Amino acid sequence: MTNKKKTALKTTDGVSGSEMINPSYISKFKSKRTKTLNTDKLVKGILNQKISELSRAITLIESTNQQHQQQANDILKQCLPHANNSIRIGITGVPGVGKSTFIEAFGEHLTSKGKRVAVLAIDPSSSISKGSILGDKTRMETLVKNNNAYIRPSASGDSLGGVARKTRETIILCEAAGFDIILIETVGVGQSETAVHGMVDFFLLLKLANAGDELQGIKRGIIEMADAIAINKADGDNQKAAKLAKVEFNRALHLYPKKSSGWTPKVSLCSALKNEGIDAIWELVLEYISLTRSSAYFNKKRIEQNKFWLIQTIENRLKSDFFSRTEIKKELENQLTLVEKNKTTPFAAAEFILRLNKSL
Amino acid sequence: MTNKKKTALKTTDGVSGSEMINPSYISKFKSKRTKTLNTDKLVKGILNQKISELSRAITLIESTNQQHQQQANDILKQCLPHANNSIRIGITGVPGVGKSTFIEAFGEHLTSKGKRVAVLAIDPSSSISKGSILGDKTRMETLVKNNNAYIRPSASGDSLGGVARKTRETIILCEAAGFDIILIETVGVGQSETAVHGMVDFFLLLKLANAGDELQGIKRGIIEMADAIAINKADGDNQKAAKLAKVEFNRALHLYPKKSSGWTPKVSLCSALKNEGIDAIWELVLEYISLTRSSAYFNKKRIEQNKFWLIQTIENRLKSDFFSRTEIKKELENQLTLVEKNKTTPFAAAEFILRLNKSL
Repeated sequence: MTNKKKTALKTTDGVSGSEMINPSYISKFKSKRTKTLNTDKLVKGILNQKISELSRAITLIESTNQQHQQQANDILKQCLPHANNSIRIGITGVPGVGKSTFIEAFGEHLTSKGKRVAVLAIDPSSSISKGSILGDKTRMETLVKNNNAYIRPSASGDSLGGVARKTRETIILCEAAGFDIILIETVGVGQSETAVHGMVDFFLLLKLANAGDELQGIKRGIIEMADAIAINKADGDNQKAAKLAKVEFNRALHLYPKKSSGWTPKVSLCSALKNEGIDAIWELVLEYISLTRSSAYFNKKRIEQNKFWLIQTIENRLKSDFFSRTEIKKELENQLTLVEKNKTTPFAAAEFILRLNKSL
Repeated sequence: MTNKKKTALKTTDGVSGSEMINPSYISKFKSKRTKTLNTDKLVKGILNQKISELSRAITLIESTNQQHQQQANDILKQCLPHANNSIRIGITGVPGVGKSTFIEAFGEHLTSKGKRVAVLAIDPSSSISKGSILGDKTRMETLVKNNNAYIRPSASGDSLGGVARKTRETIILCEAAGFDIILIETVGVGQSETAVHGMVDFFLLLKLANAGDELQGIKRGIIEMADAIAINKADGDNQKAAKLAKVEFNRALHLYPKKSSGWTPKVSLCSALKNEGIDAIWELVLEYISLTRSSAYFNKKRIEQNKFWLIQTIENRLKSDFFSRTEIKKELENQLTLVEKNKTTPFAAAEFILRLNKSL
């Protein structure tokens, strides 16, 4: 280096390729890497119920790298014929309701019945530091050591759409890897419940028995989506309040229109900590599955869900492509201000922006 | 005509302009027509509360003719500074609940208080033959003859988006024409309630007192949107059941999260037929308006509604432009079949269609 002054405009002469590295090492390393990520090998591993290959494939699904995404698509395509055979259960509830404890007890119960259980989470805002339940695997101390259980921390992403896609594709891989039950957890305070509801067969809401407004704090429509409500921590001094809550929730559920599944949502008491009432909840799920399988609603719902996600994905992309354009962003802000000042109608403003888009 | 055989391919020689028409008549007629539809004259008429000009301008809003739409936009622009001063009330309820009778009694009550009342309807599927309440004006025999009331049958259209736009723009014209109260009716069995909720200040749900499942048959979320529930036909033998229903609905409303307006929804009994309890419902509306005006929520909500419609209009157009393309329609059908047969994932299918669109 001849320049003494540090400057961003400074150039260096560059370094020519070092002769010190044996070229055969490079090709060996490259071939090994290719081999490691080989699509066929990963698919074979997944179908042979190998957790390491499953985890690696899920990582490809979660990757933003285009090559990884292409590989993930190839893997998914090969796994699809082996998927679709599990029971998918969504579990939601506000923080503090005991979701981790419940999932641990529920998962243990299922594996004791000979089932293989995968636990996924959907939570766009989650990160370990924010106390994501599944990011913090150690909370499910027993289940995490269970050979018939697989716990995968929450897929991360900026948009719910992206996270939903990843979770749905992960379900396919888990099913191809022979998991009988997929538990999908969500935190119960955002939009993610609707997304989870759109990818599961059975939707379980966890609640606590509180005095007063039983349904306060639950997002609009979540109760309506529930196929069952489990009132957790129904033990000790809580038992009386839990029983009252059960009556209250049964009344609330009764007020909603009949579900197209033909199923009447149930309320159940449990104590995940004391491992009480867990079996009854599993029985409820089985009852539901039996009812909806015999009416063919089960498969119909899955097909509808897939079609929904196809349309949803297109619509989301149309919107994000449009609104991410710099010129559109700028004009949208301008038109929103005019709308706010009552200088234009929302429709004239929309027309203006759409015309601008066509002229770009 | 020289062709004897009737065929679609047959041509006629055409008729040259008749000399029998005096050319000065034509120009007179043309100028009269232009004059009749003159924008400034229509605006002036609207601002002078002339019903004929208001009706004519609404017809322009409803027209699919591009020139008419352009003129409608010009009229709207000039009316906007004079709009925004009414109270907009959405009224919904299933057929048979007595909406027409209620609106007639409510409208009469309001005009007796010196208010000018416009009644609009939003119902994409409505047509006179299907028993559209407002299409059949004669049902409101008294109100239709009331000089301070204006009843406009439902805007028609294929899409809810289109109907919603027309209704919202009609509200602006009615406000510019000095109407103090705009009642917007919807049938309570479709998606239109959400659209109406997005354009009104106050949302009223009409119900009957029935034995048994009080809330059955009401679309999901409608109760949640209601600022008040009026139990109609609370007269004679119905009174006891109505009182019980009131208790039941109060309990149901209590189960929902608090509204951001700070308002607690109320349940009221009335008999539109016997003109009982109508005044109390108007008092409720006034109470609500007073509360939300003092908290500035009233205007905030209107601005939010306008912004919502701006974004909504753009999104609807993006979708309809995309999905109406012949090639896209064809490929979408193809990909939906593949999804149904589990041959592809919803996301891979969406990618495929989006790529196709870019290549078109």
